Amino acid sequence: MAAGGGVRYEPTWESIDSRPLPAWYDNAKFGIFIHWGVFSVPSYGSEWFWWYWKGEKRQNYIDFVKNNYGPGYTYADFAPQFHATFYNATKWAKTFETAGAQYVVLTSKHHEGFTMWPSNYSWNWNAMAVGPHRDLVGELSDAIRRSTSLRFGLYHSLFEWFNPLYQQDAANKFSTQAFVKMKTMPELYEIVNRYKPDVIWSDGAPGSSTYWNSTQFIAWLYNDSPVKDTVVTNDRWGDDAMCKHGGFLTCDDRFTPTHLLTRKWEDCLTIDPWSWGYRRDMSMNEVLSVETLISTLASTVSYGGNMLLNVGPTSDGVIPPVFEERLLQIGQWLAVNGEAIYGTQVWIAQNDTITPNIWYTAKQSGRGLDVYAIVLAGLDKDFIVLGVPKVGNDSKVSLLGYEEAVEWDTLSTGELVVTMPRQQDLPYGAQWGVTLKLRFLMNAVKKPNTAKPTAGKPVLKKAKKFRRPALPRKEDLMEPWIKSSFFDL
Amino acid sequence: MAAGGGVRYEPTWESIDSRPLPAWYDNAKFGIFIHWGVFSVPSYGSEWFWWYWKGEKRQNYIDFVKNNYGPGYTYADFAPQFHATFYNATKWAKTFETAGAQYVVLTSKHHEGFTMWPSNYSWNWNAMAVGPHRDLVGELSDAIRRSTSLRFGLYHSLFEWFNPLYQQDAANKFSTQAFVKMKTMPELYEIVNRYKPDVIWSDGAPGSSTYWNSTQFIAWLYNDSPVKDTVVTNDRWGDDAMCKHGGFLTCDDRFTPTHLLTRKWEDCLTIDPWSWGYRRDMSMNEVLSVETLISTLASTVSYGGNMLLNVGPTSDGVIPPVFEERLLQIGQWLAVNGEAIYGTQVWIAQNDTITPNIWYTAKQSGRGLDVYAIVLAGLDKDFIVLGVPKVGNDSKVSLLGYEEAVEWDTLSTGELVVTMPRQQDLPYGAQWGVTLKLRFLMNAVKKPNTAKPTAGKPVLKKAKKFRRPALPRKEDLMEPWIKSSFFDL
Amino acid sequence: MAAGGGVRYEPTWESIDSRPLPAWYDNAKFGIFIHWGVFSVPSYGSEWFWWYWKGEKRQNYIDFVKNNYGPGYTYADFAPQFHATFYNATKWAKTFETAGAQYVVLTSKHHEGFTMWPSNYSWNWNAMAVGPHRDLVGELSDAIRRSTSLRFGLYHSLFEWFNPLYQQDAANKFSTQAFVKMKTMPELYEIVNRYKPDVIWSDGAPGSSTYWNSTQFIAWLYNDSPVKDTVVTNDRWGDDAMCKHGGFLTCDDRFTPTHLLTRKWEDCLTIDPWSWGYRRDMSMNEVLSVETLISTLASTVSYGGNMLLNVGPTSDGVIPPVFEERLLQIGQWLAVNGEAIYGTQVWIAQNDTITPNIWYTAKQSGRGLDVYAIVLAGLDKDFIVLGVPKVGNDSKVSLLGYEEAVEWDTLSTGELVVTMPRQQDLPYGAQWGVTLKLRFLMNAVKKPNTAKPTAGKPVLKKAKKFRRPALPRKEDLMEPWIKSSFFDL
Amino acid sequence: MAAGGGVRYEPTWESIDSRPLPAWYDNAKFGIFIHWGVFSVPSYGSEWFWWYWKGEKRQNYIDFVKNNYGPGYTYADFAPQFHATFYNATKWAKTFETAGAQYVVLTSKHHEGFTMWPSNYSWNWNAMAVGPHRDLVGELSDAIRRSTSLRFGLYHSLFEWFNPLYQQDAANKFSTQAFVKMKTMPELYEIVNRYKPDVIWSDGAPGSSTYWNSTQFIAWLYNDSPVKDTVVTNDRWGDDAMCKHGGFLTCDDRFTPTHLLTRKWEDCLTIDPWSWGYRRDMSMNEVLSVETLISTLASTVSYGGNMLLNVGPTSDGVIPPVFEERLLQIGQWLAVNGEAIYGTQVWIAQNDTITPNIWYTAKQSGRGLDVYAIVLAGLDKDFIVLGVPKVGNDSKVSLLGYEEAVEWDTLSTGELVVTMPRQQDLPYGAQWGVTLKLRFLMNAVKKPNTAKPTAGKPVLKKAKKFRRPALPRKEDLMEPWIKSSFFDL
Repeated sequence: MAAGGGVRYEPTWESIDSRPLPAWYDNAKFGIFIHWGVFSVPSYGSEWFWWYWKGEKRQNYIDFVKNNYGPGYTYADFAPQFHATFYNATKWAKTFETAGAQYVVLTSKHHEGFTMWPSNYSWNWNAMAVGPHRDLVGELSDAIRRSTSLRFGLYHSLFEWFNPLYQQDAANKFSTQAFVKMKTMPELYEIVNRYKPDVIWSDGAPGSSTYWNSTQFIAWLYNDSPVKDTVVTNDRWGDDAMCKHGGFLTCDDRFTPTHLLTRKWEDCLTIDPWSWGYRRDMSMNEVLSVETLISTLASTVSYGGNMLLNVGPTSDGVIPPVFEERLLQIGQWLAVNGEAIYGTQVWIAQNDTITPNIWYTAKQSGRGLDVYAIVLAGLDKDFIVLGVPKVGNDSKVSLLGYEEAVEWDTLSTGELVVTMPRQQDLPYGAQWGVTLKLRFLMNAVKKPNTAKPTAGKPVLKKAKKFRRPALPRKEDLMEPWIKSSFFDL
Repeated sequence: MAAGGGVRYEPTWESIDSRPLPAWYDNAKFGIFIHWGVFSVPSYGSEWFWWYWKGEKRQNYIDFVKNNYGPGYTYADFAPQFHATFYNATKWAKTFETAGAQYVVLTSKHHEGFTMWPSNYSWNWNAMAVGPHRDLVGELSDAIRRSTSLRFGLYHSLFEWFNPLYQQDAANKFSTQAFVKMKTMPELYEIVNRYKPDVIWSDGAPGSSTYWNSTQFIAWLYNDSPVKDTVVTNDRWGDDAMCKHGGFLTCDDRFTPTHLLTRKWEDCLTIDPWSWGYRRDMSMNEVLSVETLISTLASTVSYGGNMLLNVGPTSDGVIPPVFEERLLQIGQWLAVNGEAIYGTQVWIAQNDTITPNIWYTAKQSGRGLDVYAIVLAGLDKDFIVLGVPKVGNDSKVSLLGYEEAVEWDTLSTGELVVTMPRQQDLPYGAQWGVTLKLRFLMNAVKKPNTAKPTAGKPVLKKAKKFRRPALPRKEDLMEPWIKSSFFDL
Repeated sequence: MAAGGGVRYEPTWESIDSRPLPAWYDNAKFGIFIHWGVFSVPSYGSEWFWWYWKGEKRQNYIDFVKNNYGPGYTYADFAPQFHATFYNATKWAKTFETAGAQYVVLTSKHHEGFTMWPSNYSWNWNAMAVGPHRDLVGELSDAIRRSTSLRFGLYHSLFEWFNPLYQQDAANKFSTQAFVKMKTMPELYEIVNRYKPDVIWSDGAPGSSTYWNSTQFIAWLYNDSPVKDTVVTNDRWGDDAMCKHGGFLTCDDRFTPTHLLTRKWEDCLTIDPWSWGYRRDMSMNEVLSVETLISTLASTVSYGGNMLLNVGPTSDGVIPPVFEERLLQIGQWLAVNGEAIYGTQVWIAQNDTITPNIWYTAKQSGRGLDVYAIVLAGLDKDFIVLGVPKVGNDSKVSLLGYEEAVEWDTLSTGELVVTMPRQQDLPYGAQWGVTLKLRFLMNAVKKPNTAKPTAGKPVLKKAKKFRRPALPRKEDLMEPWIKSSFFDL
Repeated sequence: MAAGGGVRYEPTWESIDSRPLPAWYDNAKFGIFIHWGVFSVPSYGSEWFWWYWKGEKRQNYIDFVKNNYGPGYTYADFAPQFHATFYNATKWAKTFETAGAQYVVLTSKHHEGFTMWPSNYSWNWNAMAVGPHRDLVGELSDAIRRSTSLRFGLYHSLFEWFNPLYQQDAANKFSTQAFVKMKTMPELYEIVNRYKPDVIWSDGAPGSSTYWNSTQFIAWLYNDSPVKDTVVTNDRWGDDAMCKHGGFLTCDDRFTPTHLLTRKWEDCLTIDPWSWGYRRDMSMNEVLSVETLISTLASTVSYGGNMLLNVGPTSDGVIPPVFEERLLQIGQWLAVNGEAIYGTQVWIAQNDTITPNIWYTAKQSGRGLDVYAIVLAGLDKDFIVLGVPKVGNDSKVSLLGYEEAVEWDTLSTGELVVTMPRQQDLPYGAQWGVTLKLRFLMNAVKKPNTAKPTAGKPVLKKAKKFRRPALPRKEDLMEPWIKSSFFDL
């Protein structure tokens, strides 16, 4: 389909950017991100443990190793303790499916360079040779496909902090490509051919896309790879491509645009906002609440994005119960409200002009658009007031998961006013948010936004009153080291 | 007070049983139990890991060790991996306080025999010599006292599965006491003198209390120990004492009597019903819900018991976030409803005759008793109907945490009917249960139950309609091995 | 025999000292000492590793642990690495037999307290529970008896540096005996009853023999134990017994008296003079030469002592090849010269008055005594001159291992002069020493020294010209810590 | 010098073979080989541990791992236990110098692929990242140069048993060169540029020299490398080069030709004939005697070869004392007899025609050649009879290390007869062998053998009566797997 009709893509950004996005991805809306690797063994601070310890030389990391491990301990010494004792890929797959996710993206290799599959290009620094002694990627790939209808994707870090070949290329200001040719590219072809992922989630690309040979690889991916018709990829393919070229945009982590974009985008975030990898000493007060997660999902979808929600498994291969609980809670909410999420498109407004924290999505129906107002605040009020929808005579208002009729009216100034039912009469999950379904609205009779992602012009109107939930922000990881100390090693 | 006025207790059950229970314990109602030890390292199956593996020789335990550890691996080999890396006793203490608990009981030594303090009688098999290299008991004892107003107690196992001295006494049908004299008693005196615990929670006592020298020890504890005025203990002091003698009754684990007892009792249970110790592979569907925990607390208190709720920390010294979440949820509920729990006494009825899952407690006030009806079911109904309270002209009904007046009436047949407010108007936690406070009832004008725990007659009336929440039950641990294979080793 | 005829020994030194020494021990002359334990894991510095590190706090030991092991490392952490992978007790037994030894003494427990057998009194601090997971004592005991005709003995340390029970007794100035009653004595009875050793080699006894209950134990050993007729023991049973009471004298390590003693004695020394336990970093220049070892054996036997030669096996259970080589070299030499060693008695002189490093032994024959002059120096001279022997008409001179007649004569002043043969005509080993056998001497016609060891008067004449080989001396281990810091812990 | 005068070598065997051998190597005669690597950790069986275990799947190796390590153990799991705790390169260097060696060859990388230096091309599989955390090659290189006058060389394995890149090339019948280009060649250039070794001792080369790019590398080594004037290399550069092309010949391990060769050759052998790497369970009866070693040296030199004697250090970095003892014994012997070894050339005969185990070497002097007869047998005879030397009137006979005149004569049939002195009059070491120096012989007046190594014709005369000492032979390692299973992996 994507490359159907004999279309072939050239290894240029212009050509690559012209490819239509495979539809499954835009419809999916919600995926699971998994950060798992050797960093899951120290499981302290962040999955950037190695870099903070030996690159930035942060004192708390230095002290942590000094106080808990032997003299001369190296990062490689953690790998044999990566046991994956309880890793059950089928159980993971079932959990993700119950959470309502439509796709899964696993770190096949993070910046540490440890490949979670038995790569030919990472000898004795991969999960078959050291630690688990298993093909962690293969097991999850098989389980997802065998047990669920989810799509399977792979995260892959182009660069590796401490790989001497990379460091040498960097020292040469990327005028040499030893690392790209001996490591990055062979690996990428290997995982695509072996695991046939539907997502290649590239990361970590100081250096230009020319250095990385990115367009050559993506052209092959789109033209000739075994997943050419279904695969999607992102934009992290070089510092000139980031937030501009490739497939869907991710820009920075926790990307939350406040206006509509012309290209499909994705917001990746993590349940433990302090780390993508597991932290053994995580406290309950550091875990995002289900309310925050649902709010992020709703606002992201209303702006045309997908949400990729991260969990960090333990080095034993267990998804910590508190993460599992969040996933199940989201799944429970989506079982009622998923109609307002999956397969939807953006509407004329993303959030309401009167009541804050109400997010709109829309879906084609026979007579125009069904509009969904996802109400995440004011649930304890007697009435919900909506400023954007224009109701007419035959407009209909219902509340997802509530069998009875909803009482509503309009103010003299035209706003829609809906009476909130008693919470105890609503399905479990209503305390986190409810969805009003609005049919036959006056301002939703025609298809409002024909712009396909990946083409067309941006909707210029800046969203008003938009206030994203305030998340704890991880320190800006990428920029400081690109600019400074990394290449001075 | 307890031993005031020159009262001294004899080393007989009759004398020991006559001691009044220190008041703090009956008022406390809710304590935290902590199972932590070498078993937290394999953290597989149960804290009875060693026994199932080497005593009962269960195949799954044998396979687990074979598949994950080296040949010839012994239980002692786990101890050096007990690191307690993130153990922060002050943080634990604060969490327990926030949960609304009034006392804490830590396993100073489980059946494995590993002492969590640097005992003089467990050389090189204690937490200072091996593993954490810290006095785990001392740190928690200090933190609880320094940072909170909670009481600190110690669990202590009389016997040790595989201690050869014990095995020899057992083989001699307990006609010798080498183990008691060289290990158990020296240890008990040591922990009381060193840590001054307000609870000695004895466990694991195959053999009679004569074998264990139990009454001698308890007489010292009550007469001469540094905690003689405040200490409480339980009933697990020999197979002749269990559920009969000593201090408060615990009988079997998860003790849930369905009639009033003449002695104070305690229900100990664990958030992960499959194990008291941490299990690395615990799943969310194995964790008790907050509803179940609150229901257990309410029903236990209504019957005059205390609830001792267990958490199993990791070998790193972290309370798993999902356990922490349950504790914080209970604390949140108690912040509103604690008035119906702490310092209460049993009422004429324990649960309602009409509506199930309503539990009564009572508290002295100027004019008789204030009665509390803890309502855990039917929260989605329009009305709550109560069969036991008899309202008069000046009776008053309110709902804890709800500022407004509650609407109520009586049926022609006399039952009290209360209108449920909208849940969104109640404090967070109302979805788990609410409390009606009933003042100036006709049937609560006099003090109904003057029986002090530890004396007086039992209330004979069997509670009707009582149905305890169905908990998953751990296999009955004690009986099989007492009767069978253990002493045939 | 020993306790035959109804003789029973009282628990007094006087009675115990009166017991005749079982004959096998005096005839044996040469035994093997084995220092093996947890100290074989760090195998650094000395088997006193723990004490130097944590007791004396020597800087090099502190640094060694700091530089090579993790923070908070304890001595107990070494035990799991004691694997005994290649321990083959039968192979050891054969090696000792080939070396010409007549008995073997193994450290059943050194001052570290780790029992090399599964003791009932050292739970989880023994070789069955931790580390090898084998009964190291039992395996050697069986192998020695099954495969050789050697006698089997056990070293046992009364005290344990860091056992808190011992430390408490010591702090009480030995007025309490908790340690003796709960640890030392139960263990000693256990090893005697279980392994029936022919030697109990006691060690390490600060505190008086009264504190240690030594005479009670030895009286039992001599009267009622399963080895009452054959067992021998030494003198290290309390600081009042050392070098005075018990069985044979050992006094200090490397005991080398320069006059005849009235009691049987033993010189224990170690091939690596810097340590009794294995040192991984031992160099060739630290290993005693075969010449030194033979010289020590000859001089020791000439003075009526036994030599107990120590080897320190690796934690893998291997006797390092260079030690094995020394043992085989001694065995080779004894195959030729053993006649001058085994079963001999002291002669009127121990060393020669003219030529240094010639040692005399003697043995009853029909007509008096055969005298052996063990010649360890001057082997490159043309003639050997002996000042002590008085030759008569029918005296005969031969050289052990040399088939041909030896040429000899007397000087005008009476000294015996023997012509040395070409070394290449002598058996291998002659470069280390040769033995002249002198029969029918004028001054050996009667039995010269009827004094039995363990009774009679000392020979008062101080040996002249005696110069023991200068050995590197281990630091004086016992005294400093007895006098000073140990009890101040 | 070597490449002086503008000579440049072409990347062809013909050109490379034409290079004259740098003189230092032929004069050196005796070098030390060191096999050290991850295999020194299991130190069981052989340095081929990994191959026997996982390639050939020998049962004893499979059992060894199963019985001593955890389930799923991999070879990479051994690397973190490679501590090099006591590695003192200066001490090693001094030992080799005292042994009389003139050069040292260290395994920079064995077939396991683990680089003993921090290679850019072996990320996380090198001694800096894992295990010792030190540059083991660099430390020895520095120490040898700083502390001694020895030459420093590096062993390097072209192939790696289990490197997937190599396996793929092999599966492609060496039609691809991914491994050569991404691993072998970058590494070789790296070690030459970084450590400037005087010997590149290549090994392990299934596949042709065309596959390996061998001639290109050697041409660079001879023309442009920093060691172009001094470096020597061997013949193991491809299965077409082995025993034919390159530098000196090594052919198979323990190469012992029985006729003179036209090219310089080397006999490498190991003190423990069962393994080049250290074996923890080595017994004394498996260690070559000093007599065998001296005999091998003498016979090798007499045939124009060098002897490269191997020791296997422990994973702690210690040369086992028994190996050190052998080295010191050789050094002691060479201190007396080295004149007959260093800087010598072959004579007209290599061994004697009458007395076995006498080996001849020769050296230019003013009047022709001084001839050395190294006598290793018949030392216990009265006379030594030599068949080859023809003595004339002014011929002179002396014995190295013996100050006095040697008695000699000729038989009527012309043979030289020398009277052996008493051994005790000779220097220590004479029991292993003595050297007769023969000057002004009738058949040594002219320079007999002008053939330079690496050029000229072979001396065709087959040596008579030559019988090399019978050594235990290691199983033929190379051939079976080249022919069979290896490439079927």
